[in-house]
Amino acid sequence: MNKKQKLLVTFPNPKPERNYIIEHVQPEFTSVCPVTGQPDFAKITLSYIPDNLCVELKSYKFYLQSYRNDGIYFEAVTNKILDDLVEVIQPRTMRLIAEFNVRGGISSLIEAEYQSPEFDDVFID
Amino acid sequence: MNKKQKLLVTFPNPKPERNYIIEHVQPEFTSVCPVTGQPDFAKITLSYIPDNLCVELKSYKFYLQSYRNDGIYFEAVTNKILDDLVEVIQPRTMRLIAEFNVRGGISSLIEAEYQSPEFDDVFID
Amino acid sequence: MNKKQKLLVTFPNPKPERNYIIEHVQPEFTSVCPVTGQPDFAKITLSYIPDNLCVELKSYKFYLQSYRNDGIYFEAVTNKILDDLVEVIQPRTMRLIAEFNVRGGISSLIEAEYQSPEFDDVFID
Amino acid sequence: MNKKQKLLVTFPNPKPERNYIIEHVQPEFTSVCPVTGQPDFAKITLSYIPDNLCVELKSYKFYLQSYRNDGIYFEAVTNKILDDLVEVIQPRTMRLIAEFNVRGGISSLIEAEYQSPEFDDVFID
Amino acid sequence: MNKKQKLLVTFPNPKPERNYIIEHVQPEFTSVCPVTGQPDFAKITLSYIPDNLCVELKSYKFYLQSYRNDGIYFEAVTNKILDDLVEVIQPRTMRLIAEFNVRGGISSLIEAEYQSPEFDDVFID
Amino acid sequence: MNKKQKLLVTFPNPKPERNYIIEHVQPEFTSVCPVTGQPDFAKITLSYIPDNLCVELKSYKFYLQSYRNDGIYFEAVTNKILDDLVEVIQPRTMRLIAEFNVRGGISSLIEAEYQSPEFDDVFID
Amino acid sequence: MNKKQKLLVTFPNPKPERNYIIEHVQPEFTSVCPVTGQPDFAKITLSYIPDNLCVELKSYKFYLQSYRNDGIYFEAVTNKILDDLVEVIQPRTMRLIAEFNVRGGISSLIEAEYQSPEFDDVFID
Amino acid sequence: MNKKQKLLVTFPNPKPERNYIIEHVQPEFTSVCPVTGQPDFAKITLSYIPDNLCVELKSYKFYLQSYRNDGIYFEAVTNKILDDLVEVIQPRTMRLIAEFNVRGGISSLIEAEYQSPEFDDVFID
Amino acid sequence: MNKKQKLLVTFPNPKPERNYIIEHVQPEFTSVCPVTGQPDFAKITLSYIPDNLCVELKSYKFYLQSYRNDGIYFEAVTNKILDDLVEVIQPRTMRLIAEFNVRGGISSLIEAEYQSPEFDDVFID
Amino acid sequence: MNKKQKLLVTFPNPKPERNYIIEHVQPEFTSVCPVTGQPDFAKITLSYIPDNLCVELKSYKFYLQSYRNDGIYFEAVTNKILDDLVEVIQPRTMRLIAEFNVRGGISSLIEAEYQSPEFDDVFID
Repeated sequence: MNKKQKLLVTFPNPKPERNYIIEHVQPEFTSVCPVTGQPDFAKITLSYIPDNLCVELKSYKFYLQSYRNDGIYFEAVTNKILDDLVEVIQPRTMRLIAEFNVRGGISSLIEAEYQSPEFDDVFID
Repeated sequence: MNKKQKLLVTFPNPKPERNYIIEHVQPEFTSVCPVTGQPDFAKITLSYIPDNLCVELKSYKFYLQSYRNDGIYFEAVTNKILDDLVEVIQPRTMRLIAEFNVRGGISSLIEAEYQSPEFDDVFID
Repeated sequence: MNKKQKLLVTFPNPKPERNYIIEHVQPEFTSVCPVTGQPDFAKITLSYIPDNLCVELKSYKFYLQSYRNDGIYFEAVTNKILDDLVEVIQPRTMRLIAEFNVRGGISSLIEAEYQSPEFDDVFID
Repeated sequence: MNKKQKLLVTFPNPKPERNYIIEHVQPEFTSVCPVTGQPDFAKITLSYIPDNLCVELKSYKFYLQSYRNDGIYFEAVTNKILDDLVEVIQPRTMRLIAEFNVRGGISSLIEAEYQSPEFDDVFID
Repeated sequence: MNKKQKLLVTFPNPKPERNYIIEHVQPEFTSVCPVTGQPDFAKITLSYIPDNLCVELKSYKFYLQSYRNDGIYFEAVTNKILDDLVEVIQPRTMRLIAEFNVRGGISSLIEAEYQSPEFDDVFID
Repeated sequence: MNKKQKLLVTFPNPKPERNYIIEHVQPEFTSVCPVTGQPDFAKITLSYIPDNLCVELKSYKFYLQSYRNDGIYFEAVTNKILDDLVEVIQPRTMRLIAEFNVRGGISSLIEAEYQSPEFDDVFID
Repeated sequence: MNKKQKLLVTFPNPKPERNYIIEHVQPEFTSVCPVTGQPDFAKITLSYIPDNLCVELKSYKFYLQSYRNDGIYFEAVTNKILDDLVEVIQPRTMRLIAEFNVRGGISSLIEAEYQSPEFDDVFID
Repeated sequence: MNKKQKLLVTFPNPKPERNYIIEHVQPEFTSVCPVTGQPDFAKITLSYIPDNLCVELKSYKFYLQSYRNDGIYFEAVTNKILDDLVEVIQPRTMRLIAEFNVRGGISSLIEAEYQSPEFDDVFID
Repeated sequence: MNKKQKLLVTFPNPKPERNYIIEHVQPEFTSVCPVTGQPDFAKITLSYIPDNLCVELKSYKFYLQSYRNDGIYFEAVTNKILDDLVEVIQPRTMRLIAEFNVRGGISSLIEAEYQSPEFDDVFID
Repeated sequence: MNKKQKLLVTFPNPKPERNYIIEHVQPEFTSVCPVTGQPDFAKITLSYIPDNLCVELKSYKFYLQSYRNDGIYFEAVTNKILDDLVEVIQPRTMRLIAEFNVRGGISSLIEAEYQSPEFDDVFID
């Protein structure tokens, strides 16, 4: 586990016999542009169908806050958050959407998904 | 039947020969966080296709109110409400969506569905 | 034909060679709760693909107004309006959505569809 | 070509090798009720995938304005506009949605589509 | 590469092993009508699944600005932007939607898509 | 007291030493057009600063429901509701706004106020 | 009285002893540009405090419809409607707002008021 | 100080030499109807200009939560919250707005203000 | 008259005996930042009470378009547009609001007014 | 000048002979709670009437960003930003509104104003 992953705390899925969706929306994500040093802001929407583990909400908040002063690109940070969460809670499927505020007159959205090979018939939406 | 299930009153489906959708939206659900003792608030959207029974609206209101001072987690309460309703009215299919207010800057949504094995070709949406 | 059905006037479909959708939205439906005698209010959305007949708009308005002082449940009235319209205009397919105002802190929606056996490959949406 | 069709001017599709969608929304359509003589108002949304021809925007505006003092029913006018456009520009597929303002407390929407037999695997949405 | 394409700068896709969506919304596109010389305004929404390359945001801004004083039709400009981006970054799939402001009482939307033959099972939405 | 006024129940103002505003919004008012017999629908917004009495909410609901089958004009019913409430609860000031649904393509709003001569320096807004 | 004024029917104010506001919103006004012959569209909001007379709603609808094929400028038509209504119903005060649809990328609003010299302390808002 | 008032913690106003506004919006207030025992829900908006003291946010949250199982009327609870806050923090001026959810088809709002006699020229809005 | 002012065409006020408001909203203003050369975008809202002259709509559109490739600051352009219009049409009062799109994460609004010394009691709003 | 004030760059007011309003809205303000160390987020709306100086937009952005890792309370930071801006640009009048995101289920707004003694008849709104 990398240092950021260790921030994530899990708890057992209370209903593993059912495929159900958990969604957390955090509109206060902020990191720093690695080129200009300017802050970036995004709304992060995490949706997943848990297998044996769920992510504890407070630890997920601290995990997202840990990016506050990191320099990282839109496309990279979205994929990294998804990768970290997949490794720690090993969901059946998971989707991460990051909606970044206007920069240079352009707003951007990055959307990435993970599908567990064992659960390839389990979908969000 | 458990104690909460006994609060739920049913009436016969007036049109069992048709698959049709009933949806009840209650934006005033409240329970208590089992760790902090702080109140949680959610909007509960129940959708189902009835088989022989429908849930009576007033009894459903009292059922949801019975959680007012219970300590229970987001994921657990959503699955429990779905399980109780499925056991009492035995629908062809049923979906429960719980949209929880912001906690720690994050809003959460839990969505769970039940499909009767006898009616596996009957869907909401 | 029952008494309410006789209120419905029809006219010939001007384009029966095409499957096209007609939708009428009436936000002023009102009937009476059969238990409490209290008025209920709903928005009624009718969508259909006509076969040989269309429903005349003014007669449809009078048909809906005829429920003004009738005591009838949400689930029953929705299915009855659909049944009456199906019998009178015999559409290829028809959908009726009734969205009832808040009662006891809960708003309700009932959605029912009819599919003509002769036109089982003709859909709305 | 009928008189109204002659109002429609076309230009060559600049990219016939691609299936792409063109949509024009006109919220100022008005005609007259053939029974009461009262004006009707609608928003007309035209969507199509062009084959060899596109409709020129200004001529389409004049075409729609030509209904200003015509007496014609909702269902008939929607199908007629679609038929005229199909005949003149011969699209791969075309959809016309007419959303009429409230009359007698009821708002109405008519939606009709055309599919070219040669392009039966080309769809809007 | 044509002159406009040379404005587009690329960077390597940080996660080529995953199909994920990148979307950039620019509401400030402006060009000039080739007939009347009047300015046109549009919101441009670009969505794509990258293969080996992503488009750098600042260069994409300058690319769109380069149309500021060009005379070009709605249908042509939408297809040209899509073609230029496809040639430069060679995505797995790409969609471009241009929503033009009201002209002559009519607003217009053009939507075009590209699908790489190598990735014909990779979709946006 | 007239028959409708007798439906209104009062309770003592719990804080008569303070000028404070009470507002009740009822979006389900319905009466009948005295000429055509057609139902009318309105949203009724009552705002007042109580003197010694407040209007009990349930009785106010029954009072408004009593108009359900009465034939009465927009302007008259708005003034009558205000007059009845003023006579029964004798407020320091009171305002009644009735917003009627579209009839003949026109929506209407009637707004009337009462000012007690004893409290001519007490205002809502 | 001019020809258009004769279309306006009045009825006695049911509550002349009170200053209260009557507002009628008609979103379907249409006339013709005197220069180009192109149709114009507007939403007309009439607000007044009646003295002895009110304007009958149906006659007001026909009055507004009488402009359908008249060629008249924005500024002129707004002042003319106000003048006609003032002459026929002689209100204590009256305001007319005409909100015209986009023409040449610009939407326009004209707002005019009349104040009776006898009632110079009676205001809307 | 009464028991509820003791829940309120204060801190010194960091800028007493300026009249400035502090506003806290809590959309999760809930108490119980003293007659029916049914839960009530409201959004509470507190606005004040501090004199020497400000209310600490967390203690204010606990203060509002203390009403969770209290039976109290709309009008009474609004005035009591205002009275408690005035007594504890002694503001220059303070306003409390409570917006209650629909009961019996009617939503209600209570708005009360306090003005310190020493600061009678200091206003919110 | 400067060069830009000469673009503005006027016509006589059709109702100079009344103080009434004319408002034109243009959401497509664009100029260029004098420092960076980057395009700026704004919505321009002009409101005035005419004296003897009104501004002709088409000429006003061309006047605003003349800034398309000019380098000028937010504060300066807003004051200049107001000054030019005041000089050409000499209104009783005039207000200009320019709402600029997000730059560097900040959106800006500039609002300036002119009051004719002869008409110092004539106001907009 | 303190360290933060030195970040603010000014430029001469291009129209000091007119009282006009400049407004900058920044929805991405973030600082840190001095007690919990948790990040706070706010939308900052600055409005002022300049005297001899205006604040340069880019420097104002950097000024606001300088609070990113500072620990400071809502009430204090709002007053400090206002004080710093007043000292550097010495406006005729200035208003600062800070709207903080939900914390503990409560959202907060702080609004402070400055009035120059020399310009006590110059107002925003």
